[in-house]
Amino acid sequence: MIIVLKPGSKEDVVRELCDRIAKRGLEPLHLPGSERVVLGAIGDERLLADLQLESHPDVESVKPILSPYKLVSRELQSHDTVVRLGERAIGAGAFAILAGPCAIESHEQLDATARAVREAGGTGLRGGAFKPRTSPYAFQGTGREGLSILSRVSKEVGLPSVTEVLDPRDVDVVVDHADMLQIGARNMQNFELLRAVGRAGRPVLLKRGMSARLEELLLAAEYIVAAGNPNVVLCERGIRTFETATRNTLDLAAVPYLKQRSHLPVLVDPSHATGLRELVGPMVRAAAAAGADGVIVEIHPDPSRALSDGRQSLDLQTFARLVRDLRPLLAALGKEVA
Amino acid sequence: MIIVLKPGSKEDVVRELCDRIAKRGLEPLHLPGSERVVLGAIGDERLLADLQLESHPDVESVKPILSPYKLVSRELQSHDTVVRLGERAIGAGAFAILAGPCAIESHEQLDATARAVREAGGTGLRGGAFKPRTSPYAFQGTGREGLSILSRVSKEVGLPSVTEVLDPRDVDVVVDHADMLQIGARNMQNFELLRAVGRAGRPVLLKRGMSARLEELLLAAEYIVAAGNPNVVLCERGIRTFETATRNTLDLAAVPYLKQRSHLPVLVDPSHATGLRELVGPMVRAAAAAGADGVIVEIHPDPSRALSDGRQSLDLQTFARLVRDLRPLLAALGKEVA
Amino acid sequence: MIIVLKPGSKEDVVRELCDRIAKRGLEPLHLPGSERVVLGAIGDERLLADLQLESHPDVESVKPILSPYKLVSRELQSHDTVVRLGERAIGAGAFAILAGPCAIESHEQLDATARAVREAGGTGLRGGAFKPRTSPYAFQGTGREGLSILSRVSKEVGLPSVTEVLDPRDVDVVVDHADMLQIGARNMQNFELLRAVGRAGRPVLLKRGMSARLEELLLAAEYIVAAGNPNVVLCERGIRTFETATRNTLDLAAVPYLKQRSHLPVLVDPSHATGLRELVGPMVRAAAAAGADGVIVEIHPDPSRALSDGRQSLDLQTFARLVRDLRPLLAALGKEVA
Amino acid sequence: MIIVLKPGSKEDVVRELCDRIAKRGLEPLHLPGSERVVLGAIGDERLLADLQLESHPDVESVKPILSPYKLVSRELQSHDTVVRLGERAIGAGAFAILAGPCAIESHEQLDATARAVREAGGTGLRGGAFKPRTSPYAFQGTGREGLSILSRVSKEVGLPSVTEVLDPRDVDVVVDHADMLQIGARNMQNFELLRAVGRAGRPVLLKRGMSARLEELLLAAEYIVAAGNPNVVLCERGIRTFETATRNTLDLAAVPYLKQRSHLPVLVDPSHATGLRELVGPMVRAAAAAGADGVIVEIHPDPSRALSDGRQSLDLQTFARLVRDLRPLLAALGKEVA
Repeated sequence: MIIVLKPGSKEDVVRELCDRIAKRGLEPLHLPGSERVVLGAIGDERLLADLQLESHPDVESVKPILSPYKLVSRELQSHDTVVRLGERAIGAGAFAILAGPCAIESHEQLDATARAVREAGGTGLRGGAFKPRTSPYAFQGTGREGLSILSRVSKEVGLPSVTEVLDPRDVDVVVDHADMLQIGARNMQNFELLRAVGRAGRPVLLKRGMSARLEELLLAAEYIVAAGNPNVVLCERGIRTFETATRNTLDLAAVPYLKQRSHLPVLVDPSHATGLRELVGPMVRAAAAAGADGVIVEIHPDPSRALSDGRQSLDLQTFARLVRDLRPLLAALGKEVA
Repeated sequence: MIIVLKPGSKEDVVRELCDRIAKRGLEPLHLPGSERVVLGAIGDERLLADLQLESHPDVESVKPILSPYKLVSRELQSHDTVVRLGERAIGAGAFAILAGPCAIESHEQLDATARAVREAGGTGLRGGAFKPRTSPYAFQGTGREGLSILSRVSKEVGLPSVTEVLDPRDVDVVVDHADMLQIGARNMQNFELLRAVGRAGRPVLLKRGMSARLEELLLAAEYIVAAGNPNVVLCERGIRTFETATRNTLDLAAVPYLKQRSHLPVLVDPSHATGLRELVGPMVRAAAAAGADGVIVEIHPDPSRALSDGRQSLDLQTFARLVRDLRPLLAALGKEVA
Repeated sequence: MIIVLKPGSKEDVVRELCDRIAKRGLEPLHLPGSERVVLGAIGDERLLADLQLESHPDVESVKPILSPYKLVSRELQSHDTVVRLGERAIGAGAFAILAGPCAIESHEQLDATARAVREAGGTGLRGGAFKPRTSPYAFQGTGREGLSILSRVSKEVGLPSVTEVLDPRDVDVVVDHADMLQIGARNMQNFELLRAVGRAGRPVLLKRGMSARLEELLLAAEYIVAAGNPNVVLCERGIRTFETATRNTLDLAAVPYLKQRSHLPVLVDPSHATGLRELVGPMVRAAAAAGADGVIVEIHPDPSRALSDGRQSLDLQTFARLVRDLRPLLAALGKEVA
Repeated sequence: MIIVLKPGSKEDVVRELCDRIAKRGLEPLHLPGSERVVLGAIGDERLLADLQLESHPDVESVKPILSPYKLVSRELQSHDTVVRLGERAIGAGAFAILAGPCAIESHEQLDATARAVREAGGTGLRGGAFKPRTSPYAFQGTGREGLSILSRVSKEVGLPSVTEVLDPRDVDVVVDHADMLQIGARNMQNFELLRAVGRAGRPVLLKRGMSARLEELLLAAEYIVAAGNPNVVLCERGIRTFETATRNTLDLAAVPYLKQRSHLPVLVDPSHATGLRELVGPMVRAAAAAGADGVIVEIHPDPSRALSDGRQSLDLQTFARLVRDLRPLLAALGKEVA
């Protein structure tokens, strides 16, 4: 860690700060410069977090040298983490395709969708029971009834399931009904919920927050792993920018960036990222080419009557064609569908 | 609501959509244009939310005419809402000054701070017991012990208190210890938490999310009011932008924008918005001049040793001077400290 | 165009606005609503731009129905524009690879680079002579000398060349030395420069501004085409967001979005978008899979000693490997290198 | 400057980099850490810009210690720069009010406006002759004819004038007609234009680019001062963010931030920042309270018929009232209108 002092900082301040660093068990360094005094601290910088050196009135800025996350870092574990999803695996080199409706509406709707996913050769079934909605007047999901439908259809059709959990109080019931727990973008920094799924013993799909830096996504994953759950899959789903043509801005460079720094698998959600169904196909292909471990896509038997996010949902035929057309591309990348 | 169809949309699609609008009890309008067919729907647009017309494959875009929030809107209630905070009031024309440490560390620390707030003539005492922290390795707050300290100091010193609640399961215990519940920026769209504080019968300070549009902030407030709690105070605390000189970008135009559209009081948090203590004073003054109903400011007896956010905390002397210098400005605006 | 009036707007205002619309030759429409009066204007909305209806104190908002660009739109020309670059073509279905150094430093440097591009089978040679640099203390380019080197190497090696023009006064000299003129991100809305290259009779590579919406990029292209030059190639090069892990955020969804709305070819610049050489390869592949017509990549014989942007430059061997590995992917997409 | 090497960097790389630093006349420092080798360079870091150390394959990151600007910095000149505008001054402690139409339309329009500015006690007259417009179909300004009107009205009414210059070729003619040259947001990084106005011997109003960091604004100012013109006034005019309620997001914390780091005066443009006339008054007051040296405001005799940006223009009566109401606020701040 590098600590830059303000111009004119006195000797006793330098001594005080070096003492505080040394007391934490790190080695302090003193670098007198031409216009600024710079201090260094050698050792595990995480020990310094509580010192809050940037609070000191004589400190101009603090520049960490090491990344603030550890358990999710490639420096700690160089090989890829593989996360089991039922009998499938995410992160083992194949390309996972999770698909399903934004919101579970009925047994009939989910059943038709799940059969289409299985038919197309998809990897898993997604479906939302608890829905976070911007407006209190919008459809809020089918809740526990939706969970029961998901669980039943998942078993009947033979596809593992993923669904979102919004509230720490619901973690147990979601664990009872689904194979993987999703943390949505709005909850990426709901730390109580992260701790709760960290103790749940079920794989977690962690979506990037709308305004989260990649370092913050990795720190959110660190919360889950530190709570005892190593089975975390990261998901890039678009960030909020000034661009209004698409719902969010899909940050595909995040895929290789995350995979170079972390051993966790990385999925891409092109549906929420773009908000426009005609961009989903190209972005699925781009995600594969960027090195993602898979995608999670919204599909619906009749998007024009979907109760949520129909604008970005593919119908079942378009989805089947998308998967079919993806196979030669995956082959050229040395991959296949998981 | 205006519905723009894609070029070449057929007559039967137009008929189908007009039927769906009419079935909801609104009056459909058909506007044949030179290059596009445009439909209108006259009446309460909130009824259309569930129709999800933008999902229809022949719909190019949907443009709402009315604002999506209602209970918090000035169109419903033209007079200002006044929110009681202990024996003080926010929104009644005076300027509220809530101050205190980012994190409650000890009785001694909070007591010294609270006495300084009272001495300076401040309105209320803020202090965090449950702390949402980006890294699992950072100080996570003193939790229930902190709440007890807050409650005790608040009574001893005679200042009403505000503290953050992070988890729906903690709402009851926080209600037992504090006069006002704060929803932090990271939880602005934690809808389960919004519903829980909506049922809590205690005033709520709702902070704008880091990437929340003002319309979304008003919809989050609508969740709380719709759950039965009309005592909501909005708080602008900076949004995340590309600028890195400050921690966030304080959006002061949000103050008159919100007050023109909503009857709820609006506070400003210059500490989190800027992250730099030397910008707090100017931004408190600017908030007052922009028409805010008050500010919430981080102060600490010894910022250089604060366990959280010391970089943006004022020491107690600087705070006293800030309030003193603010008084003539408030007088020129026809206001005084609440 | 839809014009929403403020609540309580009077009859005579409605009449006045309808008159102004009719005087422009469009058909006005009057839609009395339950809470707002809404007006429509049927016809070519571009005629209304000068009316500035949004300035009227009784107008709440104006919502255009049609896109504001025309010449670059697919609605005007449904087939793809093909732009000639020397003896090659961009937009004809093949994948163009333009490569070269950020800044031309010497004949030796550019010659080595150009031979590597030709060897790898690349399409064209890029190289900056006039360099826009954030700091006046940074290397500012080799200017006219650089142009001469570019022109000479381009001929010797047999590759068409692309270089940036910064100043309308330099358009003629750049036309004398290069096959394609580049408008950089910082100049996307330098309208005098757009007009100047619009009259220059040379293909133009138009980069998206760092904070430009896609609609604004298309309007900038419209300036060039309207000035008489139909040979415009669009280039997505990353936008400025809150993310600091990468230099910019590459918006790959822009590729299919632009190609669906415009007939102009679209390239991607993964070097400036990410600023990190280890992300360039994955983003080139992702650009191809997203449907881009090619890429423009920074390469250098010795990136560790480059005078500009070395951090994002590939060395010549890495570039050769990148192109080699790209070929099977292009084949799977039914394409080849242009 | 701090140079962090990648894990596992060899001794000879360390030696090579230290040599390159020393050759530039700076003192290299070698700080062996527990997980990373860190190098330091003591001295004027601007000398290192050309070394491009971040390009080196063994360098993980480079962290400058000193600010990259110098001439505009308070560290070089601690007292405030005062910029003369005709017989008035900006930056001498008083509050400048520059007002006028977005676009000069006619002598009649500008004359009426200028008389209103003088009547209200304003400081200077703004008016656009060359207009940068996003669409080629929008009104493009009255050009040289507008300049003549500006020059004539300015003399007749006795107010100094400010107008934008877009093209280096127009600098001379604008110098002939106006007292202050404005560089618009879209041209903040048009470096040829910055150099041209740096040689023009006329005060310059430099607007912050829509996506410019404050450091980049200061570097743009450094271009002008380095070219020989010390009379630069900075202007915050809103940045582009995800928020769509206002045209841009006014970053008022930029005012004290800039004034603490630079000796140049700082104005605020609330009209372009918000795009909504009903927010202009509150933001003028907030700018004053934040410590700005003045504002530049759009006004028009009949905003509902303005040819450009009428939505954000005040009518002349509203402007007069705004200035009148501002006076007691300025008095409380110990200021008056310049």
